[in-house]
Amino acid sequence: MSVNLPPMGELYPVPGVRLASCGAAIKSADRDDVALLVFTPGTALAGVFTQSGFRAPPVDLAEQRIAAGKVRALLINSGNANAATGIEGLEDAQHLCAQAASALGLEDEAVAPFSTGVIGERLPVEKIAGAIDTCAGQLDPDSWAAVAGAIMTTDTAPKALSEVVEIDGVQVTITGIAKGSGMIKPDMATMLAYLCCDAAVTASCLQQMVRAVADASFNRITIDGDTSTNDSFVLAATGVAGNVLVDDVCSPAYQILQESLVRVAQLLAQSVVRDGEGATKFVTVAVSGGASEAECLQVAYTVAESPLVKTALFASDPNWGRFCMAIGRAGLVDLDQSRVSVFLDKLCIVQQGRQHPDYQEADGASVMANDELTIRIELGRGEACAEVWTSDLSYEYVRINAEYRT
Amino acid sequence: MSVNLPPMGELYPVPGVRLASCGAAIKSADRDDVALLVFTPGTALAGVFTQSGFRAPPVDLAEQRIAAGKVRALLINSGNANAATGIEGLEDAQHLCAQAASALGLEDEAVAPFSTGVIGERLPVEKIAGAIDTCAGQLDPDSWAAVAGAIMTTDTAPKALSEVVEIDGVQVTITGIAKGSGMIKPDMATMLAYLCCDAAVTASCLQQMVRAVADASFNRITIDGDTSTNDSFVLAATGVAGNVLVDDVCSPAYQILQESLVRVAQLLAQSVVRDGEGATKFVTVAVSGGASEAECLQVAYTVAESPLVKTALFASDPNWGRFCMAIGRAGLVDLDQSRVSVFLDKLCIVQQGRQHPDYQEADGASVMANDELTIRIELGRGEACAEVWTSDLSYEYVRINAEYRT
Repeated sequence: MSVNLPPMGELYPVPGVRLASCGAAIKSADRDDVALLVFTPGTALAGVFTQSGFRAPPVDLAEQRIAAGKVRALLINSGNANAATGIEGLEDAQHLCAQAASALGLEDEAVAPFSTGVIGERLPVEKIAGAIDTCAGQLDPDSWAAVAGAIMTTDTAPKALSEVVEIDGVQVTITGIAKGSGMIKPDMATMLAYLCCDAAVTASCLQQMVRAVADASFNRITIDGDTSTNDSFVLAATGVAGNVLVDDVCSPAYQILQESLVRVAQLLAQSVVRDGEGATKFVTVAVSGGASEAECLQVAYTVAESPLVKTALFASDPNWGRFCMAIGRAGLVDLDQSRVSVFLDKLCIVQQGRQHPDYQEADGASVMANDELTIRIELGRGEACAEVWTSDLSYEYVRINAEYRT
Repeated sequence: MSVNLPPMGELYPVPGVRLASCGAAIKSADRDDVALLVFTPGTALAGVFTQSGFRAPPVDLAEQRIAAGKVRALLINSGNANAATGIEGLEDAQHLCAQAASALGLEDEAVAPFSTGVIGERLPVEKIAGAIDTCAGQLDPDSWAAVAGAIMTTDTAPKALSEVVEIDGVQVTITGIAKGSGMIKPDMATMLAYLCCDAAVTASCLQQMVRAVADASFNRITIDGDTSTNDSFVLAATGVAGNVLVDDVCSPAYQILQESLVRVAQLLAQSVVRDGEGATKFVTVAVSGGASEAECLQVAYTVAESPLVKTALFASDPNWGRFCMAIGRAGLVDLDQSRVSVFLDKLCIVQQGRQHPDYQEADGASVMANDELTIRIELGRGEACAEVWTSDLSYEYVRINAEYRT
């Protein structure tokens, strides 16, 4: 089940990046679940990481090592999040990074670890160690599709995308991968996404860029409002393309590169929603007329995460009273409901806080019957706006999360 | 579907209160959906009302009139919330209050209106006006059960309770009614609850008491995290019992009365959860060791409203990683996960932020199989504690809210 999930198009190798995946039978024996990404010397890396108070040990390690500026390889496993595993979980992650470092001829601190899957179980260290050696012997520039598959958990399909953009007359290649598919309300990042490009960018510029890209993409999605313990989003720039080093966030080159990365990241983030657990609809909640972007997001997330809104979406029922209910509970101070309008796509349902005089239920039902739609909310109290992407709440969401241990 | 919902016991008349209900065919022709409660002169009233920014017009009117100290009657309808209805909705409520006032020989401002049901539709004023006249002609002290039934929406059973308490040697009777059953995360009150007693209490004492009682009961429940546009909780004290007027919040009489009211309100609030939409479990989330009650509530509500926790409860799956995930995303600053413990009833699952060495999955599964259980979380950062009551997320919740317009 997924909503118009685009198939992976052609994935371009990113000069300066080699990668590989293989199976360690962490949760299932018939799929790849360990991946290695290795970068050429001089690659700049930046990341954003979950703000969860129950962060998994590998997240701390990856954040520290990337911040230290020495990372040359990413070690990723699915099937086990290595979360809520205490000091032993940290030692497991350190041990496996050392194993990868040894196989690649790097310092231990040059490997950053990432895990996704069930929370609370120790990693099967021996199995993963074997898989690391296999991966290290199979690195090549063309394994993006296989790696996108290896990092999946309950995703029904891999999410990956490439784009080419020109900076200062030089072609830069961007390829990104991401995985979803429940426990999705990234808080500063999403559950594992990696964007690599071959542009030359300073580490400080890249750190600003990764935050801006996350805020425009992975930090704008919610499936169930539940934030993972392992969210990590990493941006790598190998510098192989030969462009003039991007070292100024105000430069045209910075802007062009960031716009291009935002585009790729938004499509990946939207793919995560399209493939959200049990999703039958892809819904944009767009809020405008707010006093600040923060309050627009507050309203958008409250509407997007309301179980009553989500079940109405699943039922294709234009039960617009529930939109008003959710707007009302979003915590905005001094909201004047008589200035609020609500639209389904272009159809005005609520005007001045009550049903538009021309609104016909059949028109609302017709928009709600679509598998993609926009709930547009105009607050009438300012100029700010924001939008988030979400899915509905179906029987299938309950089934997936009641029947399977994720 | 409901979880050990206690049957209504004997309901005692409250001296000074007469009431009646009848059918106006607002949503269905075969049930009562309009009720009147009329108080003897001198009755003190106090209320708490939803903080929703999309408050229904009758809520504003009821709050103003109760605050003005002149209310002698409550007019309640189910089947239509008169919410998101703008100035016309306010006029409808005023008109119906005037109708009731005329039938009862009162000033217009002596009637406070309450509505619950579908949002966004105008009230069927003519039908309700007729029902008001019928109710006014049938007032008696014994109609509590009928009125508890008349205020229901998707509730499967009425919620009502009586208790007798002695204050200064005088017997005081308390009878309360409430209705749920979706869109339940009261913010300052729940979707319609009324507690009446015959104690003599000053209006200012009663106003403090209603807040304290709400905070200990209806403000501690959540079914789906969605807050209604119409939540109202009213406390009436008719003064007929003959006790010495309670006019000091520090007096023993005040304390005794409040404790008794809290007990009744908690049982009613818990009944709302037991009859929550699609509920198959009644779950207490008890958080201790917090730096403040506020942060304990923050954690308790995040766990109680997490869709992944709720689906695990539905599945009776001791998937404790999801509890950690939810604790982690509750937004506590500087949470030290290595100090966190989690218990299912008395079974310690998580100690020092990871699985307890003696924990066996079968033991967790055995507790989760019960239809009532407590998730106990110890944060290890202070002395504060708080608990909330909630239900699980079942197929039935999705069915009710996808198939029916509420």
